[in-house]
This record gives sequence, structure tokens and C-alpha cells, in this order.
Amino acid sequence: MSAADTKVIGERAEAMLQALASISAEPDKLTRLYLTEEHRRAARLVAEWMRAAGLKVRMDAAGTVHGLLPASREGPSSSKRLLVGSHIDTVVDAGRYDGTLGVVAAILAVEELRRRQAALPFALEVLAFGDEEGVRFPKTLIGSSTVAGALRDPMLDLTDADGVTIRAALAGFGGDPDALEAEAYRHEDVLGYLEVHIEQGPVLERLGLPLGVVTAIAAQGRFRLTVKGEAGHAGTVPMDIRRDALAAAAEMALAIEAVAKEPNEASLVATVGEFRVLPGASNVIPGEVRFSLDLRAATDAARERAAGEIRRRVEAIAARRCVSLTMDAVHEKPVAACAPEMIETIAGAIEATTGEAGYRLMSGAGHDGQAMSHLAPIGMIFVRCRGGISHNPAEYASPEDMGLAVTALVSAILGIAEQG
Amino acid sequence: MSAADTKVIGERAEAMLQALASISAEPDKLTRLYLTEEHRRAARLVAEWMRAAGLKVRMDAAGTVHGLLPASREGPSSSKRLLVGSHIDTVVDAGRYDGTLGVVAAILAVEELRRRQAALPFALEVLAFGDEEGVRFPKTLIGSSTVAGALRDPMLDLTDADGVTIRAALAGFGGDPDALEAEAYRHEDVLGYLEVHIEQGPVLERLGLPLGVVTAIAAQGRFRLTVKGEAGHAGTVPMDIRRDALAAAAEMALAIEAVAKEPNEASLVATVGEFRVLPGASNVIPGEVRFSLDLRAATDAARERAAGEIRRRVEAIAARRCVSLTMDAVHEKPVAACAPEMIETIAGAIEATTGEAGYRLMSGAGHDGQAMSHLAPIGMIFVRCRGGISHNPAEYASPEDMGLAVTALVSAILGIAEQG
Repeated sequence: MSAADTKVIGERAEAMLQALASISAEPDKLTRLYLTEEHRRAARLVAEWMRAAGLKVRMDAAGTVHGLLPASREGPSSSKRLLVGSHIDTVVDAGRYDGTLGVVAAILAVEELRRRQAALPFALEVLAFGDEEGVRFPKTLIGSSTVAGALRDPMLDLTDADGVTIRAALAGFGGDPDALEAEAYRHEDVLGYLEVHIEQGPVLERLGLPLGVVTAIAAQGRFRLTVKGEAGHAGTVPMDIRRDALAAAAEMALAIEAVAKEPNEASLVATVGEFRVLPGASNVIPGEVRFSLDLRAATDAARERAAGEIRRRVEAIAARRCVSLTMDAVHEKPVAACAPEMIETIAGAIEATTGEAGYRLMSGAGHDGQAMSHLAPIGMIFVRCRGGISHNPAEYASPEDMGLAVTALVSAILGIAEQG
Repeated sequence: MSAADTKVIGERAEAMLQALASISAEPDKLTRLYLTEEHRRAARLVAEWMRAAGLKVRMDAAGTVHGLLPASREGPSSSKRLLVGSHIDTVVDAGRYDGTLGVVAAILAVEELRRRQAALPFALEVLAFGDEEGVRFPKTLIGSSTVAGALRDPMLDLTDADGVTIRAALAGFGGDPDALEAEAYRHEDVLGYLEVHIEQGPVLERLGLPLGVVTAIAAQGRFRLTVKGEAGHAGTVPMDIRRDALAAAAEMALAIEAVAKEPNEASLVATVGEFRVLPGASNVIPGEVRFSLDLRAATDAARERAAGEIRRRVEAIAARRCVSLTMDAVHEKPVAACAPEMIETIAGAIEATTGEAGYRLMSGAGHDGQAMSHLAPIGMIFVRCRGGISHNPAEYASPEDMGLAVTALVSAILGIAEQG
């Protein structure tokens, strides 16, 4: 495909994203939450685009829009489907690319496949999920978990800030809270799940690469640490008898950073983001510090190894400084590894599209693929975004890069078709 | 003096402190601010005690209660006076010893001197200042600065939380805002200023000593540091390209601690007490940290040297981590050194009283002596307090230790009398 053709596709993607971005709960910024009037309008627009691309459209019980392209030649996989999609909800004051690019890219890939008259030996289904961001309700991935049959506990009585339950919101939207389980696809019917998404990080931009192939959606552990020392007067307690909770916590934060910076194959990242110092007065030695640890890695083993090493080091610091320490795991999300064959196929598709080997990177952020990995092999294409910025109006991916992403997605779908 | 006599004096001190502690703005805790009705009642009680001890009492323009014992024998110093005192205001929810012990000890010392029929060759004046804590108004040491002639700018239009000016409060109390300058004592009329005060720190308790002699009221520097790095997603920004403001600030806090822990003769202490991390979310790499530095030492030179060394080290950390840094001095208080001859006399008095050499220590907290050092040589006796706790209802000094403090104060006054 020529660069000019790619650019035309990218510009179509940009125009479609523009149209979706105009559907917002707020006039001057983009906010589109799950099961709202804005979600309904966006879902309708997506459904229109799907129909125009020749897809058979339906909305499922969770509000996900499905657009089906049946298999165009008979074969052992012709009753199976390859899923491609992403989500159309946004955070508050969002950018225009997160999620929506994946839906738009899937529709444009279908158009391109039809333009090329590609005869796929399996059905292709485009999915537009409605709740990847988890902003309206304290629950996320209901749409993808429903399709994946991974909806262990939909918690339908959870409410939004106005007290509306998920159950009521679903019913009002035209979904069916009692039919979620029946929507689950069977493993044997699904070949895989592909998703195009902006990177939401700075790696591809730094490397000068438009696209990358995701190896895994990170394993994540969240911990809460509390250090208790002894508060005291900043003037009257000599240094050698202090039990300064801040000094201890500072040493721990550096130990955490050091563990994450040690050479490893798992893209390990560790972040201390919340950090509260008590009592927090300039003339009082801190008596207590409470801080968070967010730990992510491309494998569960690497994350667990790092958590163990961090625990050993912070406990040693606490013991040496005579302060007490608790380190509690508050959240744990196992890794959602991309399927090796999907990684290979996508890497090949990126190389065919860009001329450069498909760069492999971990996704530190969460995606619908997490839920979909329970159903089928998943694969993700990351698109360079400016400054690594996301969840912000400054979010940006260029039409050129988006055109390349659609082209690589087409190439990956054809690659899967060739593998049979 | 026998241990039994000392104990009796200590128990009298305890009873008097109890009586003062009952004068509070709040029924269930001790709060007595400058120029309030509680201050007036406490000043009246102190004045009564002074009169009962044979002192001639007056209240000055700043609300300080003065009780004068004229010289009882003629000599070259008989027109001069030795000042002894402390303050009778408190913080909010205060302990019963901070300040008040110094006033009570001075009155009990006068009683003991009269009991012994000591003929002093100078006048002895007990002072009960009203605003050492600086809680009601954003200004402190007005009482002692008035006597010391160190009232550069009384800032009489400063207001309390209710909008009452110092000027109005003084007038309402029976003081005279326009006569403050005229209250200043002349250097040539004053032999010195002595003060008994609880240590407000843990040093004497750790050493098992009831009393200590203060070498200096610390030089203090307060700084505000701001570190700016780059906020980012906790999952998507690799460790090696982060500019984490918290990691940088943590390293700086440890560098500050290290500088203060280096062997030095100046009782250097450095405290990072305030520490704000922005944005402060568990899944966001901190973009900014603002923190305080409180630096105190027994000499100005030591404090300045430490500030310079800290500045060098934190700037090097900022440069290495590619974060920006500002370090601004927001407050500077020069050292108020105790007079060498006062230190010697008090050390001798402590040794005579307790049998152990007078232990020398810095006062990290501020005291009326800071202002009084502008007028005359100052000396301070520190009294052991339980757990080093102060500015808290749990503040405690034992009757035995307070009795020893009064005895040592008497001994120090007699020592000054002997030196002529």
C-alpha cells in the first residue's frame, strides 16, 4: 500500500475520531461515560459506520456494539470469528484517541479488506465496548468481560455518584442486566482478539517508531505502606535518637526505585505516588508516613519477585531505623499476556507496514484485552502518541501513524487468515 | 539543703503550677493566650504570689508582671538588678510546665533566699512575660523584647483570628501600646537574666540527669524547597526515563539527614517536617514535591555552614535527576548564646545541688532569653521532662526535679552575688 493511501486512511480515522469527540456530556471538553445519553449517541454513530462498512450490527446486553462480517470462504474456521475492537467510553475531560481509535481502526480495516476483496476464511467481528475506563461506576470491563464470559460478579447494585445502579442504567440503555451471562462467547468459536490502541506512554516516540507490538498487559500490584516512628520537636531532639518516619520512608522510596531499576526482562516499573506525612508541620519531626506502591511487570513472576525483594529491603530499613512498618497488598491484577503467535503475527505486520522490526513493549495501562484474554489469544498494536500524554485533551496521534496502524491491522488479519 | 527540703519546694512548685493550670479558656484543657481574660487572671495570681514573697509588684505596658526585691546590702551593684523569669501564656491544649515553671521557680527562689536571709548586693526582679508562644498574634516575645529594648517593630496593627489588633488588646488588658519603648531597661542597670525551663526534649531523661545548663538558644533557619520533575502514568513510563519528583525529594531528605548527622560541635539538627507530593495519586508518578527544612545549631556559623552544604548536595541531586529545584530561606533567627560566665555559674550551681557536673546542652526551642540576650548576659537551667514531651497535656516534670531546679537557681543567684 502506498504512503498516500495510508495517509488517506489516517485522515479518515482522524475525521471519524473528530465526529466521535463531538459527542460529549460537556460542551467544552470530552466526557462520555458508560450507559449515558452520550454513550448511546456514540454507539449509534459507530453502528452506522459499521453498517456502511457492510457489517451486520447488533447491541448486546451490556451495551456493546457488535458488527459482524461473515466468513467469505468455506473452511475449517468459517464458523469461527476473529474479534477486533476497543472501547468508546472516555474519562472526564478526555483525549480523542484512547479507545475510540481502536474501534475506528477496526471499521477502517474492514473497509480496506472489502476494498481489497480479501476472502477471509473466518468471520470478523468489530466490538465497541462501553466501560473500559471505569469512571461512572466502581467497576470496569463489564462489556468485554460479558463477551469473554469472565463476568464473575457483575455487582449490578453498585451505583454511580447519583445513586443509579448498574442494573437500572443498563435497563434504561436498552441492555439487559439479566442476560449478561448468556452473551458469553465460547472459546471454540473465537480465534482471537486484536486491539489497536495509543501507547499512552513515551516509549515509541522516544524510539522514533510509529507502531509497537504489546507483549503483555502488565501484572499490577498495589500496596499500602505505613511507617510509624516518633514525632518530636524539630529543635530539641538530637539527630542520633530520632525515629523520623519521613527519613525512613524516603529511604524506602529509594529502595523501591532501586529494585525497579535493576536490569530485568519484565519492563518492571514501581511508583510511589501517594505519600502523606503526619503531622506535617515544619517544626515537628514526622511521626508517621503513609504511602502507596504501584508495581507493574510483564510477568506475574517478575512482579512477585520484585514485591518480595522490596518487602525484604523496606523491612530491613524499618528494623535499622527502629520504626514500625506495615506493607499490605490492596489490589492485585494478574498479567494478561499477549499470545506468542499474535505477537509474532503483529510484529510481522508492523515490519511489512513500516519497514522496521515490530518493537515489543509492555502495556503498563489496563485494556479490554485483559478481560478478552480469558476467552481467546489476544494481540495489541500500540500507536505512538505525542509526549506519551493520555487521559488529557492534549492526547494526540498523527493521521500518518493511525493510517499505518490500520494498515498493520489489515496485514495482521490477513496473516492470521493465511495461518488458517 | 536536704533532699526533704528540696522535695517540699518541688511540691510547692507543683501545687502552684496546678493552680495556674486551672486558669484556662477551655474547661477540659489548658489554653491561655496573651492579653486574654485568662492571662489577666493568671497575672493576678502570680502578682499575689510575688507580694506574698515580699516583692514589690507592677505590671508594665506590655502586660508583663514585675516583682522587685531591692538589694539588701550596699555595694557597687546595689542599683543594678538581676532578672529571673519566664512566661505565663501557653499554647492551645498545653502542658502545665512550659513557661510557668520558670515563673514559679523564680518566686520560690525569692522565698528561699529570704528564708535563708541571704543579703544580695543587687536587686532581684522576677518577670512573668505574657507572649512567648506567639499563638494569638503572628508576633512573639513582645513582653521580653519590651523589657530588653529590642522591640524593633511591635507591629501593633497585627490582628488575632477575630480581627482584634495587638494595640486594642493591650489597651483592653490595661497595658499601654504607646509606652512600650519607654519600658526598655538600660544595659548598665541589668546584671543578667536567668530562666528555669523544662527541656522540651529527651536528652536529660536519656542521660538520667535532672538538670542541665543551656549553652545557647539555637540559631534557626527555615527553608522551603520545591522539586519539579515530570508527572506520568505509573504503568507506561519506563524507569530509566522518569523524572520522579518524589524520588528526587526522598534522596534530598536523606542528604539533609546525613549532613546533620555528621560529627559536629554545634548540636546541629535538621528536620524535613512538611512534605507535599503532587498530584499525589497512587497511579501517577509525582511531578512535584514541596517540602520544608528546619535547621538549628548552637552557632550561626554552624547553621550557615550546614545550609551551604545541604544546598550543594540537593542541587547536585536535582542536576543528576534532571529535576528543577528551588531552595528559599523563609525565616532566619540568629543564635542567642548564653553568657560564658552564666554557663559556668549555673554549671557550678547544678553540681552543688545534684552532685553531678552541670551537663551542657543547646536549646533547640525558642525562649524569652532570645529577646533578653539583647539586654544582658543570659543563662538558663533546663529541667528534665518526661519523654521529652511538651506542648501537650502529657508534659511532666517531677516535683523532685523542680525542687532541684529551684535550689540550683538559688545557688546560681548566690554565686552571682559572690562574684560581685
